[in-house]
Amino acid sequence: MKSKQLPNRILLSEREIPKKWYNIAADLEEKPRPPLDAETRQPISPDKLSAIFPQRLIEQEVSSKKFIKIPEELLKAYAKWRPTPLVRARGLEELLETPAHIYFKNESVSPAGSHKLNTALAQAYYNKLEGVKRLVTETGAGQWGSALAMACNHFELGCKVYMVRSSYDQKPYRRTMMRMWGAEVSASPSEETRAGREILNQHPDSSGSLGIAISEAVEVAASDAETKYSLGSVLNHVLLHQTIIGEEALKQMDKVEEYPDTIIGCVGGGSNFSGFAFPFIREKLEDKTRAKKLRVIAVEPSACPTLTRGVFAYDYGDTAGLTPLLPMYSLGHDYIPPAIHAGGLRYHGMAPLVSLLVSAGIIQPVAYTQNEVFDAALKFARSEGIIPAPESSHAIRATIDEALRAKSEGKKEVIVFNLSGHGHFDMSAYDDYLQGRLADSTIDEEDLQKYLNQLRHQSFPV
Amino acid sequence: MKSKQLPNRILLSEREIPKKWYNIAADLEEKPRPPLDAETRQPISPDKLSAIFPQRLIEQEVSSKKFIKIPEELLKAYAKWRPTPLVRARGLEELLETPAHIYFKNESVSPAGSHKLNTALAQAYYNKLEGVKRLVTETGAGQWGSALAMACNHFELGCKVYMVRSSYDQKPYRRTMMRMWGAEVSASPSEETRAGREILNQHPDSSGSLGIAISEAVEVAASDAETKYSLGSVLNHVLLHQTIIGEEALKQMDKVEEYPDTIIGCVGGGSNFSGFAFPFIREKLEDKTRAKKLRVIAVEPSACPTLTRGVFAYDYGDTAGLTPLLPMYSLGHDYIPPAIHAGGLRYHGMAPLVSLLVSAGIIQPVAYTQNEVFDAALKFARSEGIIPAPESSHAIRATIDEALRAKSEGKKEVIVFNLSGHGHFDMSAYDDYLQGRLADSTIDEEDLQKYLNQLRHQSFPV
Repeated sequence: MKSKQLPNRILLSEREIPKKWYNIAADLEEKPRPPLDAETRQPISPDKLSAIFPQRLIEQEVSSKKFIKIPEELLKAYAKWRPTPLVRARGLEELLETPAHIYFKNESVSPAGSHKLNTALAQAYYNKLEGVKRLVTETGAGQWGSALAMACNHFELGCKVYMVRSSYDQKPYRRTMMRMWGAEVSASPSEETRAGREILNQHPDSSGSLGIAISEAVEVAASDAETKYSLGSVLNHVLLHQTIIGEEALKQMDKVEEYPDTIIGCVGGGSNFSGFAFPFIREKLEDKTRAKKLRVIAVEPSACPTLTRGVFAYDYGDTAGLTPLLPMYSLGHDYIPPAIHAGGLRYHGMAPLVSLLVSAGIIQPVAYTQNEVFDAALKFARSEGIIPAPESSHAIRATIDEALRAKSEGKKEVIVFNLSGHGHFDMSAYDDYLQGRLADSTIDEEDLQKYLNQLRHQSFPV
Repeated sequence: MKSKQLPNRILLSEREIPKKWYNIAADLEEKPRPPLDAETRQPISPDKLSAIFPQRLIEQEVSSKKFIKIPEELLKAYAKWRPTPLVRARGLEELLETPAHIYFKNESVSPAGSHKLNTALAQAYYNKLEGVKRLVTETGAGQWGSALAMACNHFELGCKVYMVRSSYDQKPYRRTMMRMWGAEVSASPSEETRAGREILNQHPDSSGSLGIAISEAVEVAASDAETKYSLGSVLNHVLLHQTIIGEEALKQMDKVEEYPDTIIGCVGGGSNFSGFAFPFIREKLEDKTRAKKLRVIAVEPSACPTLTRGVFAYDYGDTAGLTPLLPMYSLGHDYIPPAIHAGGLRYHGMAPLVSLLVSAGIIQPVAYTQNEVFDAALKFARSEGIIPAPESSHAIRATIDEALRAKSEGKKEVIVFNLSGHGHFDMSAYDDYLQGRLADSTIDEEDLQKYLNQLRHQSFPV
């Protein structure tokens, strides 16, 4: 029996919800390069962003303040499910027979099913404050779309979601969920936008991508004065709102008097990872003794290897090239990654802040294949009882491998990962896996190299 | 702002998990009549039950002790998710503009998705102790089957589930969930048992029923020495294990210094209702002042109106007549209720303990149609953010009506209901509702009267 007196779930009271978000940009010696206007190649003016974002979110996007206060009304909304538990994964430890202590931050308990609600509520709140009537967004697997639908319902805003066609067809129940919260959902590419129609002209059977869906959503926001655009990841203000995860996790580790040797999160656009990891990385940047040896691992799918194989360059956030150019690791904005079930990780780019920290060697990226990930997911479901989202299962895979390494080295390490969401709407993927029908989508190497070369030659270096 | 200083979620620490189950039979002046052997019409001997149940569960079934200690190993397993939160439903209160305080006990946070895991773990534990190798059971909507699959996986037992055909087809993802936890799942009626084959001979297209699935499971358990049967509701020991819900709720109400005027739960076989309500009813039976005016409401579907229209008589628990005769409200063991999405409430009988308390006037039953229930579910999803199971939504419907009554009478009442599970695997039903395709299944009156008359004339009075 290991430390029997300690609880399985480390809980905080509602009063302990963090009152501030952490803005890591304030602590970086090398500041992130600014987004560029695609036409002028000059840093984009905040004015130009105000066509699609409300003023307060633009301020947060470029803020150099270290902490930003969370408004009272948002704290009240967060209290519906926050603070989320930090869980000691004793079942998984026993299964692996590892001396490591494994913990996970359980963001899957959010009513929308993932961490995405943290920023969805914040974005809906600031838009509402500035008189916006409707938000439009894209969604891959549907976690983000569900969260924004719920947040818009909460703050009485309209909500329109462009859902990547492959997920739209594979996950009909995510659509239903969004509609229950009053959102309007279209499969992307759609006939409703110029960007969508252009893709459909070239590829009538397109299964879509996050990049295409972003183009559609941005186009709609830019052409309607009462509608603004909302993004579920990548941008600084989105990552900022997610830092409430790591702030809670720090308090929870203190309660059990442990500190991680390794923290792990999955990365698509980078938001759950950053929200969880940045407050820990702060302690590294502040040169705190306990954080000196902390390892920070970002896990991505081999089928969409943005950090492990991409190029660090200025690139568009979307396929049609409607967004500013962002300084980030990318596979090329018009590269279409092969289909995988972890739709939330199937994005060509990466948050500029994560990209910068990877290039600085502070974050280590790793990649896993789909079957490796589902094998880990099943082990977790059987030992911890929770069915994880395929996205989050990337973090579980890396955690298992780290725990096995600790075992082989005889080290009692502390490993903490972020369980970003549950997999209740991903059961068809699990069914495929159980029936041995899950394929490891392979990358068309020639195709990928073409895009990477374009990126190396056409974009600005960062 | 109402009582802003009070938390939204009233949490208990792991140390506050109740250490004892409450056995209401000990407090009843009029004791429940014993189950009868169908052949001899005499009280069944515990020996005869031991073919399908382990000794310790039989002891609990007939126990006259008021409290029964929860074993340490089970408390450890419960700590994965218990104590569950008691939530103040401020969103719903605001939507209804009611002066009532509405609370719900959130059993949907269990990893299997409902309260069912409370007894599934207990049953798997006691079977394991006595050397049983495998459990066999039935499931309607799949909540019970998922819970038992998970519990068997936890205690390393085999698990076989007969799932009512209509749910098997409608809810493929529940099947996948059970298989993820290692269970074997067959659609019922199946060709695997005599009971199943007989039904299929008469009704080749049978969509099944809980009564039929119970017959199949009992038959398998009776014919295999290493396999025992496990039931998800109805029996005394199952209700007993669920009382942990109400024991926690009592502590939580104390924390906010309120006491319910009305408590509400949905009823199928009676287990979530009883587990939540019995500890409160204890205070009534003990004549505690604060409980004198407590109203206790059991909510069932109009399409399966066991308590509101059934006959209180001795009847079989299953369709084929393989179980003992139980003293309960019933619609007739071979009556097949029309299809509804709340498959967990589609059972011809009712727990003998609940039946007795209804006949004694302590519990008031009410019935609602499917569309009334889904209307309430949507209101709840939009105001509280949680998608409820169709079963639990029966309790929500009654809660809303009580809160509106309190409003019209200008009374600041306290209403507490049990949210027995989430609806993440019921999205096709919600899709039907949103598209206006949800039918209110009507009962074939002539057919029902035929069964009720049989019951009045063929069964023993109770």
